[in-house]
Amino acid sequence: MRFGIVFFPTVGPADKPAPQYFDECLRLVDLAEELGLDHVKIVEHYFFPYGGYSPDPVTFLAAAAGRTERIRLGTSATIPAFVHPVKLAGKLAMLDNISHGRLDAAFGRAFLPDEFEAFGISMDESKSRFAENVEAVKLLWSGEDVVWKGSFHSFGPVTLLPRTYQQPHPPVFVTTARSAESCAQAARDGHYLQTVPNVMSTEELQSRLAVYRSEWAASGRTPGTERIHLSYPCVVDPVAEKARAKGRFDHERNTDAISAAVASWADRKSADYPGYEKLAEIGRHPDFDRKLAEGKLLVGSPGEVRDQLARIAAWFGDDVTISLGVHSGHLSVEDAATTVRLMAEQVIPELSAADGPRQERTR
Amino acid sequence: MRFGIVFFPTVGPADKPAPQYFDECLRLVDLAEELGLDHVKIVEHYFFPYGGYSPDPVTFLAAAAGRTERIRLGTSATIPAFVHPVKLAGKLAMLDNISHGRLDAAFGRAFLPDEFEAFGISMDESKSRFAENVEAVKLLWSGEDVVWKGSFHSFGPVTLLPRTYQQPHPPVFVTTARSAESCAQAARDGHYLQTVPNVMSTEELQSRLAVYRSEWAASGRTPGTERIHLSYPCVVDPVAEKARAKGRFDHERNTDAISAAVASWADRKSADYPGYEKLAEIGRHPDFDRKLAEGKLLVGSPGEVRDQLARIAAWFGDDVTISLGVHSGHLSVEDAATTVRLMAEQVIPELSAADGPRQERTR
Repeated sequence: MRFGIVFFPTVGPADKPAPQYFDECLRLVDLAEELGLDHVKIVEHYFFPYGGYSPDPVTFLAAAAGRTERIRLGTSATIPAFVHPVKLAGKLAMLDNISHGRLDAAFGRAFLPDEFEAFGISMDESKSRFAENVEAVKLLWSGEDVVWKGSFHSFGPVTLLPRTYQQPHPPVFVTTARSAESCAQAARDGHYLQTVPNVMSTEELQSRLAVYRSEWAASGRTPGTERIHLSYPCVVDPVAEKARAKGRFDHERNTDAISAAVASWADRKSADYPGYEKLAEIGRHPDFDRKLAEGKLLVGSPGEVRDQLARIAAWFGDDVTISLGVHSGHLSVEDAATTVRLMAEQVIPELSAADGPRQERTR
Repeated sequence: MRFGIVFFPTVGPADKPAPQYFDECLRLVDLAEELGLDHVKIVEHYFFPYGGYSPDPVTFLAAAAGRTERIRLGTSATIPAFVHPVKLAGKLAMLDNISHGRLDAAFGRAFLPDEFEAFGISMDESKSRFAENVEAVKLLWSGEDVVWKGSFHSFGPVTLLPRTYQQPHPPVFVTTARSAESCAQAARDGHYLQTVPNVMSTEELQSRLAVYRSEWAASGRTPGTERIHLSYPCVVDPVAEKARAKGRFDHERNTDAISAAVASWADRKSADYPGYEKLAEIGRHPDFDRKLAEGKLLVGSPGEVRDQLARIAAWFGDDVTISLGVHSGHLSVEDAATTVRLMAEQVIPELSAADGPRQERTR
């Protein structure tokens, strides 16, 4: 297993001022770089405390690039529907060059009605815009004199500058897993997978990953070269009860934030988002204990979190990469730094040792 | 006079690889921070060596923000027509927060037909898109529950996150000066001015700046609070002939780059861009010596450049800010660092001393 950090702010100005939040995140970036973690990522959202401090993940990642040498930098994800493909391909290519090839480019469809409305984009075009725009970005990265005639954009012949550092292009992840078909499509397209286990049952995710892995191999790709990134909220403390108290508080604040952001799902449906209208029910019942028991959170003492990770490895394979949501902003940066340090010094090294020879995973 | 650096790359992959160019620029950012310069800026262009390494200035400036504490960070300019106002306002607000209020936000209309074509935007809408989108960005920055009903975008009510660090919003510059009317409009809107003296005669620019300053005061603003940023290519060397040889080479490469980028003006006209069709003639005749004699370039020994700057101060006022184009990429980074160091150590300090009491400027 590899580990990194994903920043998903759920604070607004009343909770923690933005400059303070970014200072704290950059301090955690420095720590992650120093401790040898694999990556830092940040989300793209708008308007609500739920992610809204980060409307442009590339801007934060570029700041991280400017002060690090080694750690990978990931969008988690960026939304192609909200920007012209030339613009998106261009700024990601700049980040790839500035960081000397450390970009992991994850693309998502977005799911908040208010975001689509602000950009004047119909949610019912979400799937087709996603597919088309990701393809356009990849073509701009890898081709020259590109001519694109799509349903939403047409351009060319143009040759994007700068050319990407990573060739033929940076690793492409798609943020998905809610449907078996989107997992199969990701594998057929040669895209890596990034998802949030919290939004589905363990059995559903196992089944989706099995589809992804088998379709990856069926598409003629070498088994084992697929990549799966899973995000988990994470609070570690030497004292288990302290970790749980902090984890519960953080979970409740995160739940409040998503509840506010998805409220407008209550009165709408979209063919491109089946079942999402149920999102409006999020947050009606406190569920920290259930989520912890179900393995959706990494919260506890170092020993407890090791056990939680062993279970995740058994469920999803020990070759998955874990993105730790250590700093929604509601806890102090000292708490977040404690989590990162304990993960790097007491959890991850012992996991690797316990792994021993690579285990066969259940598919 | 204040001084900073503007990065305007005119190199493509065949001249200097992008990661090397960005490494060099970040090294110069560090030097500018250390030597106390006022700002670093970078342009927005696409596809051609003429600026094309920087399709998203915010990405580079964020990398600079991540490694500096003091120096101001400017777009030079960014183009509102090519991006949704929510996206543009959001990423600039992130940069303003990450940098603790060091953003100078300059907006431009763009002028390369190929860029407009790629984005599917008519050049004949350039003026109206610019005016509308700059206004929308400012409103998103300064207002809450913003409702926008424009010709090109409609949205709201939304409250942008993050809120800007600088209140009510970051300084807004417009990149203009080709027409008296646009200078007057900038003053009426309370916008600062950023321009390139090379694109017009000294007398024209004097007349434009006089309009800007008088309209600034006529709009009820305190005279002297207006800001004018002028960009000049700059090569300084202890040995005057060496500076001129390097400056000539750099000027010829820059001219080749703009010639290629404006070639498509040869067969078009636009009501929003009167006279631009003549741009296609750029580069037909070598003109380094003429440009140097006309005061369009800062090239020479420290003493010579001091004299050139004294002339600029006499023409345009000693309160203008100068952005030095020290690294198009064709010269070595050592040459660029020599320029920056000589400017900071031998040119600028003596200018301030020579200025003595604030001089009255010609209006």
